[in-house]
Amino acid sequence: MSDKINRVVLAYSGGLDTSVILKWLQQEYQCEVVTFTADLGQGEELEPARQKALNAGVKPEHIFIDDLKEEFVRDFVFPMMRANALYEGLYLLGTSIARPLISKRLIEIAKEVNADAVSHGATGKGNDQVRFELSAYALNPDIKVIAPWREWDLTSRTKLIEFAEQHQIQVTKDKRGESPFSTDANLLHTSSEGKVLEDPWDETPDYVYSRTVNPEDAPDTPEYITVDFEKGDGIALNGEAMSPATLLAALNELGRKHGIGRLDLVENRFVGMKSRGMYETPGGTIYHLAHRGIESITLDRGAAHLKDEWAPRYAEMVYNGFWFAPEREMMQAAIDHSQQKVAGTVRLKLYKGSASVVGRKSPYSLYSEKVVTFEDDQGAYDQRDAAGFIKLNALRLRLLGRRED
Amino acid sequence: MSDKINRVVLAYSGGLDTSVILKWLQQEYQCEVVTFTADLGQGEELEPARQKALNAGVKPEHIFIDDLKEEFVRDFVFPMMRANALYEGLYLLGTSIARPLISKRLIEIAKEVNADAVSHGATGKGNDQVRFELSAYALNPDIKVIAPWREWDLTSRTKLIEFAEQHQIQVTKDKRGESPFSTDANLLHTSSEGKVLEDPWDETPDYVYSRTVNPEDAPDTPEYITVDFEKGDGIALNGEAMSPATLLAALNELGRKHGIGRLDLVENRFVGMKSRGMYETPGGTIYHLAHRGIESITLDRGAAHLKDEWAPRYAEMVYNGFWFAPEREMMQAAIDHSQQKVAGTVRLKLYKGSASVVGRKSPYSLYSEKVVTFEDDQGAYDQRDAAGFIKLNALRLRLLGRRED
Amino acid sequence: MSDKINRVVLAYSGGLDTSVILKWLQQEYQCEVVTFTADLGQGEELEPARQKALNAGVKPEHIFIDDLKEEFVRDFVFPMMRANALYEGLYLLGTSIARPLISKRLIEIAKEVNADAVSHGATGKGNDQVRFELSAYALNPDIKVIAPWREWDLTSRTKLIEFAEQHQIQVTKDKRGESPFSTDANLLHTSSEGKVLEDPWDETPDYVYSRTVNPEDAPDTPEYITVDFEKGDGIALNGEAMSPATLLAALNELGRKHGIGRLDLVENRFVGMKSRGMYETPGGTIYHLAHRGIESITLDRGAAHLKDEWAPRYAEMVYNGFWFAPEREMMQAAIDHSQQKVAGTVRLKLYKGSASVVGRKSPYSLYSEKVVTFEDDQGAYDQRDAAGFIKLNALRLRLLGRRED
Amino acid sequence: MSDKINRVVLAYSGGLDTSVILKWLQQEYQCEVVTFTADLGQGEELEPARQKALNAGVKPEHIFIDDLKEEFVRDFVFPMMRANALYEGLYLLGTSIARPLISKRLIEIAKEVNADAVSHGATGKGNDQVRFELSAYALNPDIKVIAPWREWDLTSRTKLIEFAEQHQIQVTKDKRGESPFSTDANLLHTSSEGKVLEDPWDETPDYVYSRTVNPEDAPDTPEYITVDFEKGDGIALNGEAMSPATLLAALNELGRKHGIGRLDLVENRFVGMKSRGMYETPGGTIYHLAHRGIESITLDRGAAHLKDEWAPRYAEMVYNGFWFAPEREMMQAAIDHSQQKVAGTVRLKLYKGSASVVGRKSPYSLYSEKVVTFEDDQGAYDQRDAAGFIKLNALRLRLLGRRED
Repeated sequence: MSDKINRVVLAYSGGLDTSVILKWLQQEYQCEVVTFTADLGQGEELEPARQKALNAGVKPEHIFIDDLKEEFVRDFVFPMMRANALYEGLYLLGTSIARPLISKRLIEIAKEVNADAVSHGATGKGNDQVRFELSAYALNPDIKVIAPWREWDLTSRTKLIEFAEQHQIQVTKDKRGESPFSTDANLLHTSSEGKVLEDPWDETPDYVYSRTVNPEDAPDTPEYITVDFEKGDGIALNGEAMSPATLLAALNELGRKHGIGRLDLVENRFVGMKSRGMYETPGGTIYHLAHRGIESITLDRGAAHLKDEWAPRYAEMVYNGFWFAPEREMMQAAIDHSQQKVAGTVRLKLYKGSASVVGRKSPYSLYSEKVVTFEDDQGAYDQRDAAGFIKLNALRLRLLGRRED
Repeated sequence: MSDKINRVVLAYSGGLDTSVILKWLQQEYQCEVVTFTADLGQGEELEPARQKALNAGVKPEHIFIDDLKEEFVRDFVFPMMRANALYEGLYLLGTSIARPLISKRLIEIAKEVNADAVSHGATGKGNDQVRFELSAYALNPDIKVIAPWREWDLTSRTKLIEFAEQHQIQVTKDKRGESPFSTDANLLHTSSEGKVLEDPWDETPDYVYSRTVNPEDAPDTPEYITVDFEKGDGIALNGEAMSPATLLAALNELGRKHGIGRLDLVENRFVGMKSRGMYETPGGTIYHLAHRGIESITLDRGAAHLKDEWAPRYAEMVYNGFWFAPEREMMQAAIDHSQQKVAGTVRLKLYKGSASVVGRKSPYSLYSEKVVTFEDDQGAYDQRDAAGFIKLNALRLRLLGRRED
Repeated sequence: MSDKINRVVLAYSGGLDTSVILKWLQQEYQCEVVTFTADLGQGEELEPARQKALNAGVKPEHIFIDDLKEEFVRDFVFPMMRANALYEGLYLLGTSIARPLISKRLIEIAKEVNADAVSHGATGKGNDQVRFELSAYALNPDIKVIAPWREWDLTSRTKLIEFAEQHQIQVTKDKRGESPFSTDANLLHTSSEGKVLEDPWDETPDYVYSRTVNPEDAPDTPEYITVDFEKGDGIALNGEAMSPATLLAALNELGRKHGIGRLDLVENRFVGMKSRGMYETPGGTIYHLAHRGIESITLDRGAAHLKDEWAPRYAEMVYNGFWFAPEREMMQAAIDHSQQKVAGTVRLKLYKGSASVVGRKSPYSLYSEKVVTFEDDQGAYDQRDAAGFIKLNALRLRLLGRRED
Repeated sequence: MSDKINRVVLAYSGGLDTSVILKWLQQEYQCEVVTFTADLGQGEELEPARQKALNAGVKPEHIFIDDLKEEFVRDFVFPMMRANALYEGLYLLGTSIARPLISKRLIEIAKEVNADAVSHGATGKGNDQVRFELSAYALNPDIKVIAPWREWDLTSRTKLIEFAEQHQIQVTKDKRGESPFSTDANLLHTSSEGKVLEDPWDETPDYVYSRTVNPEDAPDTPEYITVDFEKGDGIALNGEAMSPATLLAALNELGRKHGIGRLDLVENRFVGMKSRGMYETPGGTIYHLAHRGIESITLDRGAAHLKDEWAPRYAEMVYNGFWFAPEREMMQAAIDHSQQKVAGTVRLKLYKGSASVVGRKSPYSLYSEKVVTFEDDQGAYDQRDAAGFIKLNALRLRLLGRRED
């Protein structure tokens, strides 16, 4: 980054790390820093970030604090859920899906305030740097990106805290000792990585979990809920219409209560290494299952199987940071096309760590009791057709079998 | 089937339906019937089938009762589990995977006794007829297949029972009323379909479950277990070496106790309709998760993601009955190739309906604490490499972004 | 087909086979026959079909002769070409793509004239019966389909001709002897199958070809042409704007002249057997290459590679007759989404059987001479980024390599 | 590369660039250089490289000149051809496939001579650096790689030549002016890039081609040849048994004579940019078609379609340099499994730029004239089976059609 930076928009949480970055950017680049703090439902007060930014010399009109919860769920989480995306079979991509939205706002703000760069606090080993930057470059190919963790020499916690203290940055007590793990949170999930989690043989200690009760402490009685869908998206809980973010928040509350959505995973990062993470996705886990449930009666097999085959790749694209990439957008166009009649109601049972679909109904149901019944179907299906169906499906195998002789 | 049949091998359970079929074949085809009864771990006494067959006039040397449990798990269940196959994202294929083995034995016996046909009791609406027959034709292209349900006029339960009574076939009391659902069982799972399950909005009644306790009745204390793997297959439980079938049986016992592996699903049949099924796969559910767990530290990302992308198609092949088809065998060759170092130990927690991986270790682990650590990695990974990695991954998106302007 | 048919719409060419079918339907089903004759650019006079239908007793208002050439190319050929679909790597699907359109019109006419069935002249061994009928059922699930070749006993050429003579159906001289092969033609291609082509070791005799000159007889001088594209579709030839069908016809003329688009293939039919066909797709071959050419500079790699991976499946769907199926429509939505900026001009060289792209340009080109140049690129690309790019791509392979030691 | 290098193995052609690199390595790294010159069939004398290396001070025992032609074709080209791999639908991967072999030998030699690094002359903008280095790292995770083009300041031709002259490196006359394009050659192909080819609208000038005659200058009479296959690999030409490299060389001669295998392409590089290349793959083009030809009669549809779906991804892996990666090896295992009975003879016609399959036969043919014939097949295929086949394939579409109403 040899070029002179005049103004940089920083993804700023107000925490220790991004506070250090703020100061470091001002010093190192001799540039004006604009802060952007997003409310993605992480459950923290954001106003303190404003005061900290002011204290650090950021101009009031350069402090952006935005509530992006609805946009996050409506334009990022729900489209991804339409794809039934699971990274490596299990992970609901809660961190991955938030990054492109943050970058989108960084770039919008950069345009608004005429900044020439954006900056973030992601480290050089993780996926988030990739997600932030790919999105930023896709949305503004001429933007400059400053990733302090890849540039500076504050390579240990001690040095970081020294820097903070030298610059009157408040260091809370819990940050002084080695924090046992690092977390990321938004309306979809909370993730934890590092430190006490680094040995994949050790069970995740209970204190790492923050979004869900331990299943063992969850209610002894199951709870039944319904989720309504329209065009592949959730629109109501227990019959009550809700906005996307409100619905997800309400499902989170249910998931928390019943200890649903904990995942302990060793995953493959895009940067080439394996890492061990712990994820809590309470509402998202319920929603994912509910969406599969409503699809099960409304989606044709051809569409459903194509979606199933694509889901791992779609998940990989989101995980790797290629949200604003043509291949993700193409797939999304196809998936959205399939969701036109994915509508109806799913009933789920929540109990001590599990969510299970127990019923589903839809005005667009393709399930036909008349066709499927073991009883007399009055001609809806001619069993003799099956003979021909099998014979022709077998033909190539028989020709092959003859050759083998 | 105009040609004269001399001798037919029937997949015979000794139950009402196949007893009727036995008699009907003798009458309708004026042919000798050979019975084959497989022990696939369905948990029923098989010797009564011998007596019934004798009573029906089958020659003693034409009654085959085979214990196929080890072959079933070793050569069918485990290879499928290596693929992490889930049909439509959820179903562990317990019924599907048993069919090709039954057909394999039918064809072997047909050769042994010089029979010209095989027969089975699957209906004309289901997938099982397809699975039985595709396998049979693949293994012997000249075999004749008799599917009585597609041929006869015993189209209602009443007619079937009348036929049974006319021919001194024993009809147990519970068969007289309309049985509320039909089931299939083997060492991997028990499935239930039809009748009381036909409305997909209605919750599966508790009496349908037979292989697992209700999670609510499961122990209040979690249980921890370990499973050891070698070349992608389970070899030990809690450190004790076990044969494939013994291991699966032991996991079934654990799964039963903790209420694990219940699945209520609307699925798409190969014959073109949607059906609603209830599955209990106690041990298989635990095993599937354990296998993913050991892969997570021993399988390279490239191999893992390819497997993830293939899994839905592999599952579709098994579900549709194409086990003995070149495309399944090709995929299996690739998957098996990937499993050479999928070895080590997985630790799981079982609790009230859930199984979760909580630890994994392996002599072949690709997880490198040294590389992934947030702490100083002493040069194992150069964070500045990430900048170039991102830049080149972003290049095409930036060129695209420039065009969009 | 036990139910009474009142009125049936027949896909009617006026040739011997469909004339026999017309009469047979009238006799066998005692029903009114409505004829539909489509001009798909097969290059035959269609008015004689009207007279023949009248002679056979079809009511004048029940004779439909439609020019579908523009609809064919615009709504079927071009969308398929956007996918770069090649069946089994080579076949441009000329027959397959015409079937759904014919079925679409059959169903529309059936609605118009209140018919309860449709009928076609495809045999029971081929793919066309499947394509016709899947499309018909998809567009009208209650339609009845009569496929005389699967029903009647006119199982040999001799019987067919006897039937024709008994019913005053004109049999041209060339139909009397065994015709050496059967053909299908439309604006996209001519196919030939059967008889003299049945031994796949024998070279296709020259007299089988009808749409292209023998390359050896083509001009000794190459011809250069340009094709312009807009949103993935051809819009002009040599700078002259043309409608879809006009453009394809003009390319056909060029292809014919230069002997382009001959293909001798053994292919796998959906009904399970291998067959040997000869195809001539003169204009389509040129168009396919031109489309790839314009995509090569306007389509991003991510989109292009996804399309390449999907193309075989898309082709399979079209070949198997699943045009009006959700999975094809989903894929089309994605593909069409990718084509928004596939625009510009491709220059091709035509010479003695070959078409080659020799130049391409576009206002939306993603090709950047500035970035790619071997010369000094003035900072457009930093070669040192490549080191990091390689290092992180190699990381997993190195970790794997360490394990192997 | 801060660490001290003691000995480096350089992929050395003896040309200007690698001669400059040799000297630069000696100077810059103060290390011993070991040269490796591979005969991959590029058609150049290699002994002059020995003398030049000696002149540059390389020890005689540190000069490696290996004939790798047979290994190249047997272990790299043929396995790739089994996959029918075409990058972006058209490119036969001639450059890509040679890189892993060169790296393999570099690593072997490094072990032999106890070197700690390898070096190559690929630039920082191309794919070859990636291919060389990914292979090197996969085979020896601890190897160091020196890529002078990414490190030095010889950033222009003029500087390079100055350096050469300062160090008594011979500069041939044609290297002094700006060479109009750069080339790479081996037994499979010759590629040309850069300079006069950089505008993708300009037709490739005739003087760029070196491996094929202009089709217009090719013989006016077609030539017919046969290629024999065994287990998916070519074994004979015109009935004469040949080793892999001999066969490919003989096909090259035929391709050259008939002007076959020229390709002008804009492709997407792994490093993120589009580039325009010209490829000549005379023998490979013929071989690729011949292999498809023999597969067409010996490969089952299920296997063939899976291979077709995988081919683009396999090609991408090879193109991107992931030859020694688990995902390529997995796919190869599957593909090789499919080739067991891909054996027989293909007949091709070569004429003025085109190769076409005109006949194929095999002892393992799955093509059954008896089944496919339009004539009476004596019961080999029951046309009525098709009705049931279609009905069940249509069932889901009909259920869908009913919903749409």
